[in-house]
Amino acid sequence: MNRKMIMYMVGNIIKLEAVILLLPLIVSLCYHEMNSVYAFSVTIIAAAIIGFAFCMAFKPKNKVIYAREGFIIVTFAWIILSLIGAMPFMLSREIPNFFDAFFETVSGFTTTGASILSDVERMSYGMLFWRSFTHWLGGMGVLVLIMAIIPTDSGRAIHILRAEMAGPVIGKIVPKIKDTAKILYFIYLVLTVVEFCFLCFGGMPIFDSAVHALGTAGTGGFGIKADSLVSYSPYLQWVITIFMFIFGINFNLFYLLLLRKFKPVFMNRELWFYIGIMIVSSGVITYSIYPVYGNFSDSVRHSFFQVASIVSTTGYASADFNLWPDLAKGVIFILLFLGGCAGSTAGGLKLSRVMILMKSIQKDIRHLLHPRSVESVKLEGKTIDNSTLYGVTTYFALYILLIAITFIILSFEPNFDVQSNLSASISCCNNVGPGFGLTGPMEGYGAYSSFSKFVLTFAMLFGRLEIYPVLLALYPRTWTKK
Amino acid sequence: MNRKMIMYMVGNIIKLEAVILLLPLIVSLCYHEMNSVYAFSVTIIAAAIIGFAFCMAFKPKNKVIYAREGFIIVTFAWIILSLIGAMPFMLSREIPNFFDAFFETVSGFTTTGASILSDVERMSYGMLFWRSFTHWLGGMGVLVLIMAIIPTDSGRAIHILRAEMAGPVIGKIVPKIKDTAKILYFIYLVLTVVEFCFLCFGGMPIFDSAVHALGTAGTGGFGIKADSLVSYSPYLQWVITIFMFIFGINFNLFYLLLLRKFKPVFMNRELWFYIGIMIVSSGVITYSIYPVYGNFSDSVRHSFFQVASIVSTTGYASADFNLWPDLAKGVIFILLFLGGCAGSTAGGLKLSRVMILMKSIQKDIRHLLHPRSVESVKLEGKTIDNSTLYGVTTYFALYILLIAITFIILSFEPNFDVQSNLSASISCCNNVGPGFGLTGPMEGYGAYSSFSKFVLTFAMLFGRLEIYPVLLALYPRTWTKK
Repeated sequence: MNRKMIMYMVGNIIKLEAVILLLPLIVSLCYHEMNSVYAFSVTIIAAAIIGFAFCMAFKPKNKVIYAREGFIIVTFAWIILSLIGAMPFMLSREIPNFFDAFFETVSGFTTTGASILSDVERMSYGMLFWRSFTHWLGGMGVLVLIMAIIPTDSGRAIHILRAEMAGPVIGKIVPKIKDTAKILYFIYLVLTVVEFCFLCFGGMPIFDSAVHALGTAGTGGFGIKADSLVSYSPYLQWVITIFMFIFGINFNLFYLLLLRKFKPVFMNRELWFYIGIMIVSSGVITYSIYPVYGNFSDSVRHSFFQVASIVSTTGYASADFNLWPDLAKGVIFILLFLGGCAGSTAGGLKLSRVMILMKSIQKDIRHLLHPRSVESVKLEGKTIDNSTLYGVTTYFALYILLIAITFIILSFEPNFDVQSNLSASISCCNNVGPGFGLTGPMEGYGAYSSFSKFVLTFAMLFGRLEIYPVLLALYPRTWTKK
Repeated sequence: MNRKMIMYMVGNIIKLEAVILLLPLIVSLCYHEMNSVYAFSVTIIAAAIIGFAFCMAFKPKNKVIYAREGFIIVTFAWIILSLIGAMPFMLSREIPNFFDAFFETVSGFTTTGASILSDVERMSYGMLFWRSFTHWLGGMGVLVLIMAIIPTDSGRAIHILRAEMAGPVIGKIVPKIKDTAKILYFIYLVLTVVEFCFLCFGGMPIFDSAVHALGTAGTGGFGIKADSLVSYSPYLQWVITIFMFIFGINFNLFYLLLLRKFKPVFMNRELWFYIGIMIVSSGVITYSIYPVYGNFSDSVRHSFFQVASIVSTTGYASADFNLWPDLAKGVIFILLFLGGCAGSTAGGLKLSRVMILMKSIQKDIRHLLHPRSVESVKLEGKTIDNSTLYGVTTYFALYILLIAITFIILSFEPNFDVQSNLSASISCCNNVGPGFGLTGPMEGYGAYSSFSKFVLTFAMLFGRLEIYPVLLALYPRTWTKK
């Protein structure tokens, strides 16, 4: 166990956060919000001191890390980033309670978008910007960012990439990790800017456009209005719909497009599965909500918006789907589990996992019919070995267990019903954001007790880091020497 | 594919049903219910003719069957048994609609106990007895009964046993299948009679005692009153609680007790897990419902009753848990998934599967820490090979998929909410019976459309036969020759 290297990496991450926090500081300065300027300045100074102290105190001689160090670094980094990221909210007294501020920051970094705020419109510009910027950072991964910009000489950075990026199989786009990270962030940045321009073009104010572009890109879902995106024009809602869809796609495909390799993109099964789910679910929901809106264009728009929002795990709402007929709610309930494509900024189970699960089932049925046959499972033309197959099915069991445990703990809340608690558990574990009932899209998580908020905070972390890293970091045996 | 042997076995099963139907016929005669006597008589004659015709027409030369024939025989047998078993309800006009009668009969045989009846107290004694007797037959398995009483010379009967009996690993108690089946039915019969005596002793009328003993033994849940067991005395509720608990235990353990082998029973992990779940869940529910009842003895009784009822997948109610606080409802919701021990008459996922799932997760975590280590998973002292482990995790995925598909189809119902549909799907797939909301313990499934009832009927069949047999019987490739 290379403890020094773990602390050294964490120190670097804190330093990076100090730099990143300059951005919301600038926003606060632009809007002359002196209270926020104070909060961000103090946080930046504190982060810089802590970061440098860590790096000085834990200078590692040996920079080699293994899988277990990768898991611990990622888990610790995310917790510490969130603790420091929560400071501005507390210092400015805009979210004075620690559990609330921690919940909100983790919800940001994990791109969940669940909020404890009862009146988001009272927040300062600086804080709103920071809240949405955490989505953008967390979407692609903070450690991936570090690898893209800080010179690392460790050849084992793949362990960090694997621990932070989501999906059953992580592929490097190019042989070097550093270049992979740079390419991913470049695509990410360009797409975010393009969305920002489209939103500005549609008449959305610049600040609103920035916040929503960041929220969509990270598939987060923090907005700046109490009614999410209800009050924006149909054009703006369609732009957000399309970009939520785009950010739920595997980023490797965008890189292939840049290289003009169209065939593998066209042949990507997960992409077609993703498109198929969008179209079928939107169709069913359109059918279900048509009587509510009475016209086809509104029904289609709200359907596609909500499906894209839930499947990409963003969580924006163009309408209060809590009030929709139960068929539409039923479809949304199932979609809460799925998540976007692997290698995207979306959370959830991931479609490639769903596909592998279905193929596992098919394989088992075939095996029952022909007990002696040995058939392999293929995905995207590649054979999936048994240990990956087995890993995915076990992950699924663990994932359902995580939801069940979260739900059981929430059930101790006196004033929440089964529907609200269950949907909140699923939504937070999948980093979607809104649930049904009291945790619906027009409500917040503010009414939960501090203890429940803390549990949900960890549910979001477990969900975003795909359970194993957090579980391992909390597992005593991880810390004992070999 | 030995089609003749399949039809021959099905013919035998129909003949057996003709014999079995003599029992409710006798009950109807005792109560002078001429309408029921007519209905049962016609059904018996029809079944006898069809059964003999099948056996004559499909006399197999070759009696060898393989796994696939086993699956098909069991699936067909259960569907045909239910179709014939539904005839008395329709002929007597007590349940005139085909979909209703088929639902009720399948609910009986699969030991679900979900009912479409809005007024069960209007039913004749003969029909009530037949309804509950299907629980008893379905609990241990109809084909297991055939193997116990009809001379079979097939050495491959294990394939049928495996397809009909529930659980990840089916163990023969003694080397011969026939003897195993006899021992199981003997224990089953004795325990049922003991419960019947205890109920009579507590002042329950003889007919009521018989019906409830049959319903408890099969872990079914059909009663004879609209309010299930609410109106019976605390003594009777405790007797039912204890027997629901007993019938959720692996029957192999009772055999071991008969042989005076106490140590393996005491060391049985699944039994301790089962007891642990009972105690912890009842404790939490007692805490939750104490303010509702205001006294400890009622709270404890209702808690233990409901937990034993749900975990053993019986579905009786000593109180309307639909009106309980959300913590109690949350616990019951999770319990709906579990099911009793493997090798019991209980339905659901089965606790040994839950234990194997948890061990799979542990194994994966250890593997992440020590990638080169090869560790085996043990249950009850025996090593579980990888294919069984993998089979259990894949089964779990398939099981969740079954619930999700059932739920989505039910969502098309216009007048049912998400909570009612979701709990109904889980409850029927696990053969429990009651759900929440409109499908709660004091409500029925009568308000669903015929289509939804048909879907739920198959969900119950899928659940009872543990998915694969039904899936394979419906899979075209099963029918093609090798």
